[in-house]
Amino acid sequence: MYKVKVYVTLRERVLDPQGAAIKQSLEHLGYREVKEVRAGKFLELLVEPSGRDLDAIIQEVCGRVLANPVIEDYRYEIEECVAP
Amino acid sequence: MYKVKVYVTLRERVLDPQGAAIKQSLEHLGYREVKEVRAGKFLELLVEPSGRDLDAIIQEVCGRVLANPVIEDYRYEIEECVAP
Repeated sequence: MYKVKVYVTLRERVLDPQGAAIKQSLEHLGYREVKEVRAGKFLELLVEPSGRDLDAIIQEVCGRVLANPVIEDYRYEIEECVAP
Repeated sequence: MYKVKVYVTLRERVLDPQGAAIKQSLEHLGYREVKEVRAGKFLELLVEPSGRDLDAIIQEVCGRVLANPVIEDYRYEIEECVAP
Protein backbone atom coordinates (compact mmCIF):
# COMPACT_ATOMS: atom_id res chain seq x y z
CA MET A 1 0.00 0.00 0.00
CA TYR A 2 1.06 3.56 -0.59
CA LYS A 3 0.12 6.64 1.38
CA VAL A 4 0.01 9.65 -0.91
CA LYS A 5 -0.05 13.13 0.60
CA VAL A 6 -1.41 15.76 -1.76
CA TYR A 7 -1.06 19.49 -1.14
CA VAL A 8 -3.34 21.73 -3.20
CA THR A 9 -2.67 25.46 -3.14
CA LEU A 10 -4.12 28.41 -5.00
CA ARG A 11 -1.81 29.83 -7.65
CA GLU A 12 0.10 32.87 -6.50
CA ARG A 13 -1.92 35.45 -8.45
CA VAL A 14 -5.31 34.02 -7.49
CA LEU A 15 -7.32 35.87 -4.85
CA ASP A 16 -7.82 33.84 -1.68
CA PRO A 17 -10.93 35.04 0.19
CA GLN A 18 -10.74 32.21 2.74
CA GLY A 19 -7.15 33.08 3.59
CA ALA A 20 -8.05 36.77 3.80
CA ALA A 21 -10.94 36.01 6.17
CA ILE A 22 -8.68 33.95 8.43
CA LYS A 23 -6.08 36.73 8.44
CA GLN A 24 -8.74 39.26 9.44
CA SER A 25 -9.97 37.03 12.28
CA LEU A 26 -6.42 36.65 13.55
CA GLU A 27 -5.95 40.41 13.40
CA HIS A 28 -9.11 40.96 15.46
CA LEU A 29 -7.83 38.45 18.02
CA GLY A 30 -4.61 40.41 18.32
CA TYR A 31 -2.25 38.29 16.24
CA ARG A 32 -0.82 41.16 14.27
CA GLU A 33 2.38 39.23 13.55
CA VAL A 34 0.52 37.20 10.93
CA LYS A 35 0.94 39.16 7.71
CA GLU A 36 -0.58 36.77 5.21
CA VAL A 37 -2.64 33.58 5.18
CA ARG A 38 -3.12 31.35 2.16
CA ALA A 39 -5.60 28.51 2.49
CA GLY A 40 -5.28 25.24 0.64
CA LYS A 41 -6.21 21.58 0.85
CA PHE A 42 -4.33 18.65 2.24
CA LEU A 43 -5.44 15.18 1.17
CA GLU A 44 -4.21 11.77 2.25
CA LEU A 45 -4.86 8.89 -0.13
CA LEU A 46 -4.35 5.22 0.55
CA VAL A 47 -3.53 3.60 -2.79
CA GLU A 48 -3.21 -0.08 -3.58
CA PRO A 49 -0.50 -1.08 -6.06
CA SER A 50 -1.92 -1.97 -9.47
CA GLY A 51 -0.49 -2.63 -12.90
CA ARG A 52 -0.49 1.12 -13.66
CA ASP A 53 2.23 3.59 -12.80
CA LEU A 54 1.47 5.24 -9.48
CA ASP A 55 2.77 8.68 -10.49
CA ALA A 56 0.58 8.62 -13.59
CA ILE A 57 -2.48 7.74 -11.51
CA ILE A 58 -1.83 10.44 -8.93
CA GLN A 59 -1.23 13.11 -11.56
CA GLU A 60 -4.49 12.18 -13.31
CA VAL A 61 -6.44 12.14 -10.06
CA CYS A 62 -5.01 15.52 -9.03
CA GLY A 63 -5.66 17.13 -12.40
CA ARG A 64 -9.19 15.77 -12.77
CA VAL A 65 -10.61 15.70 -9.25
CA LEU A 66 -8.47 17.00 -6.40
CA ALA A 67 -7.26 20.26 -7.91
CA ASN A 68 -8.57 22.75 -10.43
CA PRO A 69 -5.55 23.25 -12.70
CA VAL A 70 -6.81 26.65 -13.84
CA ILE A 71 -6.42 28.25 -10.43
CA GLU A 72 -4.63 25.67 -8.28
CA ASP A 73 -1.24 24.01 -8.11
CA TYR A 74 -0.57 20.68 -6.46
CA ARG A 75 2.35 18.66 -5.24
CA TYR A 76 2.44 15.22 -3.69
CA GLU A 77 4.61 12.83 -1.72
CA ILE A 78 4.42 9.06 -1.89
CA GLU A 79 5.25 6.88 1.12
CA GLU A 80 5.21 3.12 1.17
CA CYS A 81 3.20 1.82 4.09
CA VAL A 82 1.92 -1.36 5.61
CA ALA A 83 -1.74 -2.05 4.87
CA PRO A 84 -3.91 -0.99 7.81
CA MET B 1 9.92 36.72 8.22
CA TYR B 2 8.81 33.17 8.79
CA LYS B 3 6.72 30.98 6.56
CA VAL B 4 4.65 28.60 8.65
CA LYS B 5 3.00 25.62 6.98
CA VAL B 6 0.09 24.23 8.96
CA TYR B 7 -1.51 20.86 8.22
CA VAL B 8 -4.92 20.28 9.77
CA THR B 9 -6.35 16.77 9.65
CA LEU B 10 -9.44 15.15 11.10
CA ARG B 11 -8.72 12.85 14.02
CA GLU B 12 -8.55 9.21 13.06
CA ARG B 13 -11.92 8.19 14.52
CA VAL B 14 -13.82 11.16 13.08
CA LEU B 15 -16.05 10.53 10.07
CA ASP B 16 -14.86 12.37 6.95
CA PRO B 17 -17.77 12.93 4.55
CA GLN B 18 -15.67 15.10 2.19
CA GLY B 19 -13.02 12.39 1.90
CA ALA B 20 -15.69 9.75 1.38
CA ALA B 21 -17.30 11.82 -1.40
CA ILE B 22 -13.95 12.24 -3.16
CA LYS B 23 -13.26 8.51 -2.87
CA GLN B 24 -16.65 7.74 -4.42
CA SER B 25 -16.01 10.15 -7.32
CA LEU B 26 -12.66 8.50 -7.97
CA GLU B 27 -14.29 5.09 -7.91
CA HIS B 28 -16.86 6.20 -10.49
CA LEU B 29 -14.05 7.52 -12.68
CA GLY B 30 -12.37 4.13 -12.55
CA TYR B 31 -9.62 4.78 -10.00
CA ARG B 32 -10.27 1.67 -7.96
CA GLU B 33 -6.71 1.64 -6.63
CA VAL B 34 -7.61 4.47 -4.26
CA LYS B 35 -8.84 2.74 -1.11
CA GLU B 36 -9.24 5.70 1.23
CA VAL B 37 -9.27 9.48 1.06
CA ARG B 38 -8.98 11.77 4.07
CA ALA B 39 -9.48 15.48 3.47
CA GLY B 40 -7.78 18.17 5.50
CA LYS B 41 -6.57 21.74 5.32
CA PHE B 42 -3.22 23.16 4.40
CA LEU B 43 -2.46 26.73 5.44
CA GLU B 44 0.53 28.91 4.75
CA LEU B 45 1.14 31.80 7.12
CA LEU B 46 3.63 34.60 6.72
CA VAL B 47 4.63 35.69 10.21
CA GLU B 48 6.71 38.67 11.22
CA PRO B 49 9.09 38.19 14.14
CA SER B 50 7.81 39.86 17.32
CA GLY B 51 8.78 39.82 20.97
CA ARG B 52 6.65 36.71 21.54
CA ASP B 53 7.74 33.13 21.02
CA LEU B 54 6.80 31.97 17.54
CA ASP B 55 5.88 28.42 18.59
CA ALA B 56 3.58 29.78 21.28
CA ILE B 57 1.85 32.06 18.77
CA ILE B 58 1.38 29.30 16.21
CA GLN B 59 0.01 26.85 18.77
CA GLU B 60 -2.48 29.44 20.00
CA VAL B 61 -3.53 30.37 16.47
CA CYS B 62 -3.98 26.71 15.53
CA GLY B 63 -5.94 25.85 18.66
CA ARG B 64 -8.20 28.90 18.51
CA VAL B 65 -8.75 29.55 14.81
CA LEU B 66 -7.19 27.17 12.30
CA ALA B 67 -8.18 23.85 13.83
CA ASN B 68 -11.02 22.55 15.97
CA PRO B 69 -9.15 20.64 18.69
CA VAL B 70 -12.19 18.48 19.45
CA ILE B 71 -12.15 16.76 16.07
CA GLU B 72 -8.94 17.88 14.38
CA ASP B 73 -5.21 17.47 14.84
CA TYR B 74 -2.62 19.85 13.49
CA ARG B 75 1.08 19.95 12.86
CA TYR B 76 3.24 22.73 11.53
CA GLU B 77 6.63 23.51 10.06
CA ILE B 78 8.47 26.81 10.38
CA GLU B 79 10.80 28.05 7.65
CA GLU B 80 12.77 31.25 7.77
CA CYS B 81 12.27 33.29 4.63
CA VAL B 82 13.17 36.59 3.08
CA ALA B 83 10.39 39.18 3.28
CA PRO B 84 8.53 39.32 -0.05
